[in-house]
Amino acid sequence: MSTAGVGSVDRRADRRDALRATAARQGLDAVLVTNLLNVRYLTGFTGSNGALLVRTDGGDLFGTDGRYTTQAGTQVPDVELIVDRGTVPALAREAVRRGVGRLGYESHDLTVDGLVGLEKVLTAAADGGAVPELTSIRRAVEALRAIKDDDEIEALRRACAVADQALAELVAEGALRPGRTELQVGRELDARMLQLGAEAPSFETIVAAGANSAIPHHRPDATVLADGDFLKLDFGATVDGYHSDMTRTVVLGRAADWQREIYELVAASQAAGRAALEVGADVVAIDGASREVIVAAGHGEHFTHGLGHGVGLEIHEAPGIGPLGAGTLAAGMAVTVEPGVYLPGRGGVRIEDTLIVTDDAPELLTLTSKELLVL
Amino acid sequence: MSTAGVGSVDRRADRRDALRATAARQGLDAVLVTNLLNVRYLTGFTGSNGALLVRTDGGDLFGTDGRYTTQAGTQVPDVELIVDRGTVPALAREAVRRGVGRLGYESHDLTVDGLVGLEKVLTAAADGGAVPELTSIRRAVEALRAIKDDDEIEALRRACAVADQALAELVAEGALRPGRTELQVGRELDARMLQLGAEAPSFETIVAAGANSAIPHHRPDATVLADGDFLKLDFGATVDGYHSDMTRTVVLGRAADWQREIYELVAASQAAGRAALEVGADVVAIDGASREVIVAAGHGEHFTHGLGHGVGLEIHEAPGIGPLGAGTLAAGMAVTVEPGVYLPGRGGVRIEDTLIVTDDAPELLTLTSKELLVL
Repeated sequence: MSTAGVGSVDRRADRRDALRATAARQGLDAVLVTNLLNVRYLTGFTGSNGALLVRTDGGDLFGTDGRYTTQAGTQVPDVELIVDRGTVPALAREAVRRGVGRLGYESHDLTVDGLVGLEKVLTAAADGGAVPELTSIRRAVEALRAIKDDDEIEALRRACAVADQALAELVAEGALRPGRTELQVGRELDARMLQLGAEAPSFETIVAAGANSAIPHHRPDATVLADGDFLKLDFGATVDGYHSDMTRTVVLGRAADWQREIYELVAASQAAGRAALEVGADVVAIDGASREVIVAAGHGEHFTHGLGHGVGLEIHEAPGIGPLGAGTLAAGMAVTVEPGVYLPGRGGVRIEDTLIVTDDAPELLTLTSKELLVL
Repeated sequence: MSTAGVGSVDRRADRRDALRATAARQGLDAVLVTNLLNVRYLTGFTGSNGALLVRTDGGDLFGTDGRYTTQAGTQVPDVELIVDRGTVPALAREAVRRGVGRLGYESHDLTVDGLVGLEKVLTAAADGGAVPELTSIRRAVEALRAIKDDDEIEALRRACAVADQALAELVAEGALRPGRTELQVGRELDARMLQLGAEAPSFETIVAAGANSAIPHHRPDATVLADGDFLKLDFGATVDGYHSDMTRTVVLGRAADWQREIYELVAASQAAGRAALEVGADVVAIDGASREVIVAAGHGEHFTHGLGHGVGLEIHEAPGIGPLGAGTLAAGMAVTVEPGVYLPGRGGVRIEDTLIVTDDAPELLTLTSKELLVL
């Protein structure tokens, strides 16, 4: 049973301590974590049903159902286990029993029905006594997750390596050639990533040939790759729950001048974006540093999305890097830089890497070359 | 762009009409559908951001963001499109503008934060006038989804065929043999399903060898397959969004008497469960029909889970078939039948098919033989 990548037992205890500190600052006695990815981050548990009660004074409780008793023992050996089909009610009853007065919960995760159910259980468990007061912790765990620890960075490094290797093998085998369809290429890329140890593709792999490459999020279809096409591949691998994300655009046969021109433009924009990834840098300014290269070349209207996003246990997470973003970078953030220029009806280029923000230059996790590849 | 499997445009219009009828019965002017799978079911839209406003008097609205403008045009050609990053606020504003007085919403899907946001938008849009009254529709769309239409059954048929074929190929190639690891077998099964046209495995494939086969939800690990092992494979393919689910247990080398005995027992229990799948049958009674075979043989304590579950756009959906279930079967339901006997430390057997409930005998979608296979 793989437990790496969600971090060692000690690392996960550190994460719970960080949440404990947040809870204490907010005057809470405990926090009920229901978001399953947040539960995974804080405990290492990879099953499909689990919740966690983090208590300010320690003595945390992890709840899951009987299917996962063994798995919980292996993955979460250091947190007291409660086995119950209804994990949230079970933890809520324990919170009352253990004297929790102010209980934090995740209002961005718990549904309207879930909150009604939680209030009922707390009231019933209090049995006429004081009912714990519920307070939202907002996205406190997501805020912790934005800064990756060493175990997480190692998982991301491996996820990026799988994607790099899968693409390298397809290129070496000549799998990207005229006559094949987008769907064939996409399925081979996915299968190759699985063979190389990915749990799954990070998202639905994008393979876009010719004019389709001008559609930012084209879904691969029966379009046949043709000589002279741009071929845009946007894909990633999930390893131990962590997602890599990369895009490369190649040319089939011979590159026309207009293709070289926009390729070099996007590459220059992408380099400028990477260079702007500094601790303390504003996400709007980073987007701007990359975007101004494209705007200056007269293609501003053809770069129709934000520059990048955080990656980790989710393919899109904090921070968003774009004109509508907010906030600054911190060391340990994992982000993508992915400018694009899309010429409707003709073709488009996107180049994307996953990187780690550090106190020095960012660490590049996507190692595939960004030179224009003509196949 | 694949639109099959979520049904033809006409089929999806039928589904919206069914929801419209439900809304009218509840005295609602419109329903805001936020659950993304429910949106997919009702519109065919497969993107990651979309919401739907179904109005009792017709004139529905579909909301998504700019990434999906083209895709929405192709997949949802028959519903008026609103392009906005904030799909729920945009649809809420339109609801006010178009005079909706009573608005249904999905309280099992909308988060606590989401409801607060929705109320704010409605109040602001009303601009001092009447604010629409919010009422939960509960799981009204899930109730519709429990009965599959012909397009959905065809997608399930194909998803089951991919899983059948992937297993057949692995068996034919001798991939299930002593010396290989559970992880290797699992990855090959997943890769094969992708090559055969699956979008993804239906869930994390279970490969459990030897004593691991006694763990109902074992995750494949580096355990090496050995002569005399039970090898349990629980897996499925997703095709056009619809999930298949099957389990087969084989023996490597030579089957011992105790292995043949529990295999035949589970096979008999599974046949009894399938035979009990009749329109109007109570889900507890169906579970009982299968379970009593195992109980009569003295293995009741070794069958530790429910008999089956509905499958469709989700791997687990209504109806649940087990001792704690409620309700009866209807024609068009897609369900699994999957009894198991698990002898801790020794090994276990589960046999699972996906079937469609009909007015006659159930239609078996999983076509792989259930004879004990010794490899």
